[in-house]
Formats: sequence, C-alpha cells, structure tokens
Amino acid sequence: MQHLEYWNIEHKTGVFYDIEEVLLETESAFQKIGFYRSATEGVIFTLDGFVQLTEKDEYLYHEMLVHPALNTHQNPKEILIIGGGDCGILTEVLKHQQVKKAVMVEIDGEVVAACKKFLPQLTASLEDPRAELIINDGFKYLQEADNRFDVIIIDSTDPDTIAKELFSGDFYSACHRALKKEGILVAQSETSMIDYFDNLRKDIYHSLKQVFPHVNFIYFPEPCYPSGYFTCVMAAKQHLINNADRNRIDHFTAISKTRYYNADIHFSCAAMSQREKLLLEIN
Amino acid sequence: MQHLEYWNIEHKTGVFYDIEEVLLETESAFQKIGFYRSATEGVIFTLDGFVQLTEKDEYLYHEMLVHPALNTHQNPKEILIIGGGDCGILTEVLKHQQVKKAVMVEIDGEVVAACKKFLPQLTASLEDPRAELIINDGFKYLQEADNRFDVIIIDSTDPDTIAKELFSGDFYSACHRALKKEGILVAQSETSMIDYFDNLRKDIYHSLKQVFPHVNFIYFPEPCYPSGYFTCVMAAKQHLINNADRNRIDHFTAISKTRYYNADIHFSCAAMSQREKLLLEIN
Repeated sequence: MQHLEYWNIEHKTGVFYDIEEVLLETESAFQKIGFYRSATEGVIFTLDGFVQLTEKDEYLYHEMLVHPALNTHQNPKEILIIGGGDCGILTEVLKHQQVKKAVMVEIDGEVVAACKKFLPQLTASLEDPRAELIINDGFKYLQEADNRFDVIIIDSTDPDTIAKELFSGDFYSACHRALKKEGILVAQSETSMIDYFDNLRKDIYHSLKQVFPHVNFIYFPEPCYPSGYFTCVMAAKQHLINNADRNRIDHFTAISKTRYYNADIHFSCAAMSQREKLLLEIN
Repeated sequence: MQHLEYWNIEHKTGVFYDIEEVLLETESAFQKIGFYRSATEGVIFTLDGFVQLTEKDEYLYHEMLVHPALNTHQNPKEILIIGGGDCGILTEVLKHQQVKKAVMVEIDGEVVAACKKFLPQLTASLEDPRAELIINDGFKYLQEADNRFDVIIIDSTDPDTIAKELFSGDFYSACHRALKKEGILVAQSETSMIDYFDNLRKDIYHSLKQVFPHVNFIYFPEPCYPSGYFTCVMAAKQHLINNADRNRIDHFTAISKTRYYNADIHFSCAAMSQREKLLLEIN
C-alpha cells in the first residue's frame, strides 16, 4: 500500500491517503498529472502534486461553483468555463435546462484525455450537444469574447501555478466585458481557514468590487482541499444571491438530484464569519 | 522536526503536522494525553492520538458549541458542561453576561492540569467566580441533577472511547430531566462528511427526537478535525434556533469579540444539505 502525502501550501501540515493503485503519473507541457485509487476516496486526481479532486468529494466543489450562480441568474443560456479539464463543472452546468451552450476552454488537452480514462462519469458531459471543448489559453480566448456569456466560471489551479494571471484585475475586467448585462462571474478563491491565503482573498474581493457592483464569497466544505473548507467568489452585474427564487431552486434540486446544494444551502452559503468581515473590512 | 500523523478513524486517510516540540506525552487513568507545538497551528492537544484542539482553530468548535444555543435560549443562567477539560467551552460560556453559574464536570483531572500548563489562555476561565470544576463521571453527576440547568453542553471524545455512554438514549433522557422547561442540550456529533459516522449521526438525531421536540444539527468548519468540517447537535424543549433575536446576537457579537460566530452565521449554520436530508430521512 502506497502513501500519498499531500502537503498544504504552507508546508507545515497536510493530508495523506492510503493509495491502492497508481493509475497514471505523467507530465504534460504545462504540469505534472497524477491519478491514484484510494479505498475510501475513489479516484484521486492531482496536478503538480496537489489534489484537484477526489471521486468521493468532487460534488461539493462542482455543485457550489455552479448552482448558486446559475440559480441566481434569471436565464442562464450561454456559459463559459475556463479551466475545468476534469469536466466536473461542465457536468453540473448541463444539469440546468435553460443552458443552450457551454463552452469549456482548458489549456491542457492531456488533462482532458486522462480524465476521459479515469473519470468517465464526468467527461461523459462532453458528449452533450450543448458542450464545446476548446483547448486554448482561457485569458486569450476571453479577450476576443465580448458581451457574449451569461455566466463565466473559473475553475483554475492556484495562483502560484500556470493560473496566475486568472487572479488579476485585468482578467476580471476581461470577464466583465465578456459578460452580458445580467452576467455573473464565479471563480475559485481558496480556503478562508488558512492565513496564507488571506492577502490573496482580500485582493480578489477588492479587485472584483472595482468592476462588479455585487460581490460575495460562497463557503462550503471540501475535505480534499487544504483545511477541508473552501470558497468561491461570485461577482454579479445585477442580481444578488439572496434574491434568487426559492421555488425555482426547489424545482431544480428535485430534478437534478444534487447531493449538497438545495435552497437552504443557497440562502446560507454566503453568510460571512467575523474573521471574514474583519479581513475584508466589511462593517 | 518531528512529524505528527493523525489518522482519521477509518485509517485510510489523515492529517499530519510538522511538530517543533513535544511538550508532554503521558498516560492518565483514562487515556493517553499529548501536547505538541507546531509553527502554524500553535499548541496541539491530543487524547489517545486524536487531535482534540489546535490553538489556531479551537475558536471554531468552541464558539459553535456555545453561542448558537446560548443566544437561542431566552435567559441562560445555569450551564452544565460535561467533558471540556481544556476549558475552551467554559471560556465561551462565560462570555455571556446572563450566565450566573457554569458547572464543568470532567472525568480526567490530569487533562485539566496539563491544559493549565500549556493552554493557560483557556484555563484562565476557571478563575471566574461563576465557574465550578467537578472531577467526576458526567453521566453519574447528571443522574442526580433534576430540573436544574438552562443549557447542557457535551464536549466529549468520540463514541469509541470512554465517552461511549454519552451517545446513548438513556443519557439524552437524563439530560432532558436535568434541564429546566426551556432547556437546550448541545452535543458534539462528529463530521457529516465521512460515511463512517453516518449511522451514528442518524442514531443521535432520532434518539434525541424521541426526547426533545426540536432537534437540529449545526455545521461549521474545523480544520483540526477529520474532513475539516464538523457538526454539533442542538436539542431544545421550546425554542427554535431560527427564532433567536438578531439584535441580541449583534450586541453579543460586538461585546464578546467572537472570531467566527455572528448573527449571519447563527441564522445559516443549521442549513441542511441534500446529503443530510437523505441520511436523516427529512422531507
């Protein structure tokens, strides 16, 4: 039995998994790719040694990056996903019947190819006629898109990787331009429980506030990420998360068979702790 | 630099910390006691090899076992804590100015003695004239208490330890008898994110529902516990968590300088995911 150690980014604490089988260890033009099998977590997918998802817990992150935003938007038809090569975000997006088109721009084709082999339940979403996969740099793609998308979802790696520019003010401005007038942006924004990320999260919040009138974090459990508790940030041109329609969410939950998200979670996931209010200088 | 490995209970995954100093490793009549120092987490306190708290993150668990219940109760004057030898719960309880008396019944005097040495910022609460420490078996103590407490808080180890009987229907009935007519019980109820605990949590919920009319779980991040996301259960004779007074909570938050808890957290912490509703057969 092999031991997969997963250091947190501060390198003073981390998580480990007992691994029954190494499925793939390879290196693409962009990053090291790893797939492992664990008895309790199922398939574990890593990039540069950091866990991207476990089969057991991927639903938490993927549901929470998608459903609060798509149920806050009045009529989300055209969706852009940047990153997201494992197709977990795409899978959740396509559960929304209003969606006519979901474009996924992933920089690393080898990630998608490996996920087709080891996570077929997620990559099956690529077969949906509404899905379009583009292998390209997301920032470049975005700079040519104008007033085109209802929701943009950034499912990137961390800012000290190839994803660095996806955390910049220029990038958020490009997202704003690419969104229609009721558009909503969602981006992964690390954990709120480790001091290391505090300055980054503060920068994300205040950079977005310069471009979008409504910005909130969304908080949710994710055992496979550092600390076990994660956040994404939602920035909207018009609609507030707490103004969503409870009946619509109840209907969506019933037909889409979510495992974490529902209306109670929708209307509580943006609640901000005292630590966060202090960090972000709110109140 | 020593490596402290902390297996989760399923023994297939776990957390590790880099330890700068072993402060104490000893064995009492009841359990193995460990204290360690980590650069990022501060003092780490273990019982039988399982992390009970880290100095960095103890506020999450201690605030959430105390403040939702004490702010839901109309006038919490007499409080009973069972377990809680590190005095973290006692510290938070005494932040409530209505509290006249806080009795803490801890089975293991050696835990309290060690915490006085390594966690003095928590055990300082023992000097409060409202605090009373009794070294005794909590269940025995409770059987002689009748109609006496406003809130009872169970801060125990896991059910496969000396705390086993604190998870039984008989114990919950004894708590019900020891509570006054508006009384509220709070007990730690493990994580909702690891299948291993599902049956236990289902039993806790349904056992409490046989004794108390109002039962809800409370969900919160706790990076030092398995999965990083933890729960406690709140069982009330009369008052519902969502009927608490927002102004009173705002006032409490301002004067007590909580770090996680506030009114927004109070009114969102009991929101139940789809996974939980399915497990508990709610809806």
